[in-house]
Amino acid sequence: MVSGAWTETLDEAEAAIAALRAGGVRVHCLTNAVAQNFTANVLLACGATPSMTVNPDESVRFTDAADALLVNLGTLDADRRAAMAASTAAALAAGKPVVLDPVMCQLSPPRLAFARELLARRGLILKANAAEAAALGQAPAALRVVTGPVDRIETQDRACGIANGHPLMGRVVAVGCALGAVIAALGARAGDPAGAALAGLAWFGVAGEVAARKAAGPGSFAVAFLDALAALDAATVRARARIVP
Amino acid sequence: MVSGAWTETLDEAEAAIAALRAGGVRVHCLTNAVAQNFTANVLLACGATPSMTVNPDESVRFTDAADALLVNLGTLDADRRAAMAASTAAALAAGKPVVLDPVMCQLSPPRLAFARELLARRGLILKANAAEAAALGQAPAALRVVTGPVDRIETQDRACGIANGHPLMGRVVAVGCALGAVIAALGARAGDPAGAALAGLAWFGVAGEVAARKAAGPGSFAVAFLDALAALDAATVRARARIVP
Amino acid sequence: MVSGAWTETLDEAEAAIAALRAGGVRVHCLTNAVAQNFTANVLLACGATPSMTVNPDESVRFTDAADALLVNLGTLDADRRAAMAASTAAALAAGKPVVLDPVMCQLSPPRLAFARELLARRGLILKANAAEAAALGQAPAALRVVTGPVDRIETQDRACGIANGHPLMGRVVAVGCALGAVIAALGARAGDPAGAALAGLAWFGVAGEVAARKAAGPGSFAVAFLDALAALDAATVRARARIVP
Repeated sequence: MVSGAWTETLDEAEAAIAALRAGGVRVHCLTNAVAQNFTANVLLACGATPSMTVNPDESVRFTDAADALLVNLGTLDADRRAAMAASTAAALAAGKPVVLDPVMCQLSPPRLAFARELLARRGLILKANAAEAAALGQAPAALRVVTGPVDRIETQDRACGIANGHPLMGRVVAVGCALGAVIAALGARAGDPAGAALAGLAWFGVAGEVAARKAAGPGSFAVAFLDALAALDAATVRARARIVP
Repeated sequence: MVSGAWTETLDEAEAAIAALRAGGVRVHCLTNAVAQNFTANVLLACGATPSMTVNPDESVRFTDAADALLVNLGTLDADRRAAMAASTAAALAAGKPVVLDPVMCQLSPPRLAFARELLARRGLILKANAAEAAALGQAPAALRVVTGPVDRIETQDRACGIANGHPLMGRVVAVGCALGAVIAALGARAGDPAGAALAGLAWFGVAGEVAARKAAGPGSFAVAFLDALAALDAATVRARARIVP
Repeated sequence: MVSGAWTETLDEAEAAIAALRAGGVRVHCLTNAVAQNFTANVLLACGATPSMTVNPDESVRFTDAADALLVNLGTLDADRRAAMAASTAAALAAGKPVVLDPVMCQLSPPRLAFARELLARRGLILKANAAEAAALGQAPAALRVVTGPVDRIETQDRACGIANGHPLMGRVVAVGCALGAVIAALGARAGDPAGAALAGLAWFGVAGEVAARKAAGPGSFAVAFLDALAALDAATVRARARIVP
C-alpha cells in the first residue's frame, strides 16, 4: 500500500513510534488553553512527558529541559507570544524539532503575521488545515503537514497522502492540536521530519479507526482514542497505514 | 405536557435544534479556563463550531466571524474583562445573540458590578442559578434562564419551568457553562430567545436523563452526556421535554 | 495491616472521608491551567465544591468563602503568583488548611524560590514527588506527602508509606494535582493534617486499583477513576488501605 519513495520513510516512522513508546521523550507545549489537558493526556498515552508552562520567564527553561517544542497559536495572548518567540529560538538553536500549528490564522491578521514571523526563522514543521495553509501561502517550512479528509505531507521534493482516520476525530476538540505535539515528540526520535510526520498521522489515523468501532458518539470516542493510542504498537500502525499519492 | 402559551415556542425550539445539528453555526466563547475544553466538546457534539480566544486584540475579530457570543464570568481576569466588553458591543451591534453567565457573582462584588454593566447594554440573555440571579436582582435582560432542580425561563410577560435533567449534571464541572454556549448557538437559529432557551434546556435535560441510565458515576456520565447530545434528534428532545407551569 | 502508631490516624482519615462525602466543603484552587478541569471534577466526585479563579483581585474573596486552599505551581504566571501569595496569607490567618504542590520546581529556579518563600510562612502541607521534594530540601512544612510507587507521609516525629495505587495513575495528567486539592478538602474535615493526607492517599490509591480493573487504557482509566472516587465509601477505603513502614 505504499509507493517506493515512501518505504524508507515508513521504516523510520515505525522506528520512531517504537522509540517514543519506550519513554524518555519530553515535549514542551506552548499551546492553547482549550487543548492543554487533552494534549497532555495524548502525549502520556503515547509514552512522552509533557510540560505546558506558558510564562515567558520559565518557558525557555522548560524548552531547554525538553526534547521537542510545540507552538500552537490558539488562544494567543501576550504571554504566549513572548514565550513562543523565545522558546522557538532556543529550540532551533539546540537543533530540536519545532512544530507550528497556526490555529485559525485565516481569521486574524496579527496571528497570521506572527505565524509568518516564526516560519521565517526556518526549520519549523508546519501543521495546518487547508484554510490555514492557504492563508499562509508559500511561507518556508522544513515540511508541511496539511490535515483534511486525506492528510498530506509535503517536503521540498516529494509529497504523499495518508488516508486513515475517521470523521469523529473532527467532533472532539484538540485532536488536531494534540497531533502537532505528537509529531514534535516523534521528531525527537525520527531520522527526519517526514518520518515523524508520517508516524504521527498514521498513528492518529489508525487510532481513530480503532476508537470509532468502540464509540457511541464523540464522548466515548475521545476516551477510546486515548486507549487506542496507548495500545497500538509500531508494527500495527505501520501495517494499517494507507499511504496514497 | 405543555400549556398552550408555550406550544409555538416548542415548535421553534425543535426547529432550532434541527438547524443547529445541520451545521454551520459558529460560537465565540469568552468563558472560564475550567470550562473551555468541555464547552468546546459540547458545541461540537451539538453540531456547532467553537472559538475560544480571550485575547482582547483578537476577540472582536472572532466575534465578527461568529454567529453568537457567550460571555461567562468564571475565572475573570483583565484580558477576559476587556475582551468581554468589546465583543459584547460588537455582537449586539450586529444583532447576534449574546448569553451572559455571571458565574458565582454573589461571591465577588467587582464581578457582580461587571455583570450589571454588561446587562445594562440591553438585549443579553441571562443564564444564572438561583444564587446568582438573586444577587443580580432586577437587572434588565432580554430573557432570564434560571437553572435549578426545575429550570425556569422568564420573559417580560410569561414564564415556564422545564422539569428534565438528572442530579449527576451537578457532579460534572462546566455542564451549566456549556449550556450557556448552546443557548447562544441556538439563538443564532431560533426565531426568538425563548425558543433558544427552551431548546437548550430541553436538549440538556433529556441528554442528562439518557446519559444517567448508562453511567456508573460522574466520569462515565460526562462521556455519555456528550454521546447523548450528539445522538438526540430534535423530535425526540421535543417529545421528551417536560414543560411545567 | 497497620502499625499501632497509625491506627488512630486511620480512624481520623475514615471520618474525614465520610465528612467530605456528606457535602458542604468548598476548596479554592490556585492551580495550573492543565489541571483545572480534572481537579474540579475530582473534587465534585468526592463531594466538595471547587472554585478556580486566579485573578488576584478576586482570589482572596474566594479563599475567604472557602474551607481550604490549594496552591499548585504548575503554569505559574504573574497573576497566579500574586494570587497565591495573598490567598496563602488569608487562608493561614484564618486557620484553613493550605496544600502546596511545587510542580516541577526542580526545573525552574524562580519557581523553586517561590515554593520556599511560601513554605517559610509555616503551616503548609507539602505534596511533592521525589524530585521536587529533593530540590526543596529541608524547607519547613506542617507535613510532607511524597508521592511515588509507594507514597509517603512524613511528620516531625513519624512516617509511614501507603502502598495502594496503579501505574495507570501516572498516564493521566493531573491525577497528582487533583490529589493535592482533595487533601486540602479533607484537611477542612480532619482532626490533623496526617489524617487528611492518609485519607487522600488511600482514597486515590484504592480508586486507582478499582478503576484499573475496568480500564482498557489511560482514557477509560480516567473515566473509571472519577466513578470510583464517587462510589467508594469511607469504610471501604479504610479496609483496603495498605499502610507500610
